[in-house]
Amino acid sequence: MNRKMVFYMLGQILKLQAGIMFIPLITSLIYGEKCFLSFLITIFVALVLGFALTLINKPRDKTFFAKEGFVIVALSWVLLSAVGALPFFISGEIPNYIDALFETVSGFTTTGATILSNVEGLSKGIAMWRSLTHWVGGMGILVLVVALLPTDSGRSIHIIRAEMPGPTVGKLTPKLRDMTKALYLIYIVLTITEAVFLLCGGMPLFDSLVHSFGTAGTGGFGIKNDSIASYSSYLQWVITIFMLLFGINFNLYYLLLVGRIRSAIKSEELWSYAGLFVGATALITYNTYSMCENFAEALRNAAFQVSSIMTTTGYATTDFNLWPSLSKGILFILMFIGACAGSTAGGIKVSRIVLLFKRAISSIKHTIHPRSTEAVRFEGKKVENDTIMGVLVYFAVYFICFTVIFFIVLFEPFDLETTLSAVAACFNNVGPGLSLVGPMGNYSIFSYISKIALSFAMLLGRLEIFPMLILFSPSVWKKRRAKS
Amino acid sequence: MNRKMVFYMLGQILKLQAGIMFIPLITSLIYGEKCFLSFLITIFVALVLGFALTLINKPRDKTFFAKEGFVIVALSWVLLSAVGALPFFISGEIPNYIDALFETVSGFTTTGATILSNVEGLSKGIAMWRSLTHWVGGMGILVLVVALLPTDSGRSIHIIRAEMPGPTVGKLTPKLRDMTKALYLIYIVLTITEAVFLLCGGMPLFDSLVHSFGTAGTGGFGIKNDSIASYSSYLQWVITIFMLLFGINFNLYYLLLVGRIRSAIKSEELWSYAGLFVGATALITYNTYSMCENFAEALRNAAFQVSSIMTTTGYATTDFNLWPSLSKGILFILMFIGACAGSTAGGIKVSRIVLLFKRAISSIKHTIHPRSTEAVRFEGKKVENDTIMGVLVYFAVYFICFTVIFFIVLFEPFDLETTLSAVAACFNNVGPGLSLVGPMGNYSIFSYISKIALSFAMLLGRLEIFPMLILFSPSVWKKRRAKS
Repeated sequence: MNRKMVFYMLGQILKLQAGIMFIPLITSLIYGEKCFLSFLITIFVALVLGFALTLINKPRDKTFFAKEGFVIVALSWVLLSAVGALPFFISGEIPNYIDALFETVSGFTTTGATILSNVEGLSKGIAMWRSLTHWVGGMGILVLVVALLPTDSGRSIHIIRAEMPGPTVGKLTPKLRDMTKALYLIYIVLTITEAVFLLCGGMPLFDSLVHSFGTAGTGGFGIKNDSIASYSSYLQWVITIFMLLFGINFNLYYLLLVGRIRSAIKSEELWSYAGLFVGATALITYNTYSMCENFAEALRNAAFQVSSIMTTTGYATTDFNLWPSLSKGILFILMFIGACAGSTAGGIKVSRIVLLFKRAISSIKHTIHPRSTEAVRFEGKKVENDTIMGVLVYFAVYFICFTVIFFIVLFEPFDLETTLSAVAACFNNVGPGLSLVGPMGNYSIFSYISKIALSFAMLLGRLEIFPMLILFSPSVWKKRRAKS
Repeated sequence: MNRKMVFYMLGQILKLQAGIMFIPLITSLIYGEKCFLSFLITIFVALVLGFALTLINKPRDKTFFAKEGFVIVALSWVLLSAVGALPFFISGEIPNYIDALFETVSGFTTTGATILSNVEGLSKGIAMWRSLTHWVGGMGILVLVVALLPTDSGRSIHIIRAEMPGPTVGKLTPKLRDMTKALYLIYIVLTITEAVFLLCGGMPLFDSLVHSFGTAGTGGFGIKNDSIASYSSYLQWVITIFMLLFGINFNLYYLLLVGRIRSAIKSEELWSYAGLFVGATALITYNTYSMCENFAEALRNAAFQVSSIMTTTGYATTDFNLWPSLSKGILFILMFIGACAGSTAGGIKVSRIVLLFKRAISSIKHTIHPRSTEAVRFEGKKVENDTIMGVLVYFAVYFICFTVIFFIVLFEPFDLETTLSAVAACFNNVGPGLSLVGPMGNYSIFSYISKIALSFAMLLGRLEIFPMLILFSPSVWKKRRAKS
């Protein structure tokens, strides 16, 4: 393995993180909070470490392969979280480092699971950093590195492939840097648009920014103990719509930008996603109608919660843990499905589910007519066998990892609904689960072992499993031979 | 499709069912119960229908293909259940036909989920028929048909393949009839051996037979309201061991019979199965130790419940619903894994899980070394790509169907633990689930729609999904053209 290149990239990422941390630093200065010191110390640590890594490991050989790409992505997410947890810990606002790490992993992976019982007690600077991790993690920090840094080879595809969610990013190859820049631009414009809409609805500037970051990354960290419940109907609808928008494949926005409107609108994944949203919202509105004052409230709550859970954001306007089991069950299923590939959302992704369905139907047809060889078609194209195999293997590995994490968390003395939904909510990067970890509960109840296991689950979910698993393979850590 | 052949086979099966029903008929005559009349009527109906079907549809063309094989299996299981439910209904011991159908499907699919709250109130004849359905369904009635009837072509493989559980039965081809006869012989000998062991422990003859049938089919219908709890430790251990034995791939017994002891003992699936049993029993013994009087009791209860759940039998010696969540969670995971392929057990099957694991590891290796092409090896042989694809697709289809059934049952007003475990217990042919459908609960609480959905889940689980799904494909019902 090209270790120098790996360490070099890790150094670059730390420097970038130090840069990003100026935003909460400035926030804390504006509000005159003493937590600015914790940011200053962390920036210093990140810069020293970052420069040390880049200077010592200046690589002569800049080529790298899929293996290095995966390792860079996995290690940098671990490192980002380890360093990103420092402000919480140093400021004393999360006095335990494991808790701070859980919160930071939850932030970067855009999960939104919290160990805090009183988020309103956080200082503005810390709250800003907490929400900013969502924004950075949503589109991916390595995508940002590729967009910003001059990388002289086409190798960066190995990094993008490991960090971007979804079954395939093959189409991105030709003009990778332009593409990643365009993606980040769309991301920034959408985020600002949401903030403006929130401001127009009378939400204070700080709140608008924080919630836009949380929505954009489909994260879900808020600044109120009741999440979004105390904001006006207008603001709730704005967030509902933007959560949905951030759950759409960003390639579609890119297609819109370059004028290929028809191919964007014809997307099968988009329509399946929209169908799921409408169906689930209709059912839950019907199911919870009697608990609400009127139809508008029932519809608003249903649409908000469905949008929040299926985009794996995790904001809440009502305690859906008190809903009837049909509605809770629908949300539980939606947690696993998630939103579109290539969005900032977690979960298995709608496109994978659609492909599984199509492959299942083609299997049934094949059993009836063994000589038929009808190919699976998706988004107007024939899907290659390797892609389908990849999706099937992903699905299997997903459930194997899920079961292992579930088994570890089972050692907690909680009911099965709590443990099962906690793992589902973390693995799928949703945040709140059901029962004790419902929208009004939090993850402080878990032991350190479970918190570490759940943090690992969040990373598995965000990076789509393989980059994290590869870290455990001994053969990754062998030195590169002369030719390999 | 060769419809005549399909109807002909259905007729044969009805005649066979009429024959089998003489056993409960005689039982009820011995005990002087008036339910003998319900058996007499059912036998008459089955014979008339059976002869009508075979006489009208005497096929000139006896060839059939995979499609017909699947359709015959699916339809005959539905028909068997529909007719098999008549004695319960006519005798009035289950006054509602849907309930009787649920109970019969549960019997034939060896699930053991019951809608009865007081099984001790059943007459001996009905109780015998109820347990006998387990025994018939365990090894498969079509396997029995193939073993008994002279089928003049090698086509029967299509039936065996559709009815036998597990990823592949390719090896059975050459001497199919001898093989199925040998399998049934092993099945009968093991069943009688268990009954003798139970008799030796002081269990009455009727109880011994009923429990041997329930164990052999890995079904779980008992004749006591507390299942096996009131029997002696010796009897509980006998049933534990025999449940485990019936969860082993019957091909291994065949190998032992023909003297290939080494290849039987080297089976990877066998050792994975044994490992799971020992690991789960050890953990649950440790976890429930404080609830028991002594170590022996804790070990006995743990071993019994683990063996019962992982072989998907469903007998119980204690209310495991009261166990701590670690133990309940382990049982919940074991429900999905099930026992060995080619046994009478349900679930996904150990061999499929092992193959998924191996394929996952080879995927990780492939990501690290893209040019490596290490094949997956299982049971000492290279596994063909088609087999792996089959397992992966099965896994995906399994979860799709599971989710659909779960969604239907969600409309019930019960907690998620009840609905989720009910679907898991029915789909995997276990029987008892958790919470309201735990070992001390029953399925009478569900609505008719849910009961039908759960019955369908049991059939999906027992026939490994595809035969049942194929019934919904319109192209199956088209008439066969001159050449196809």
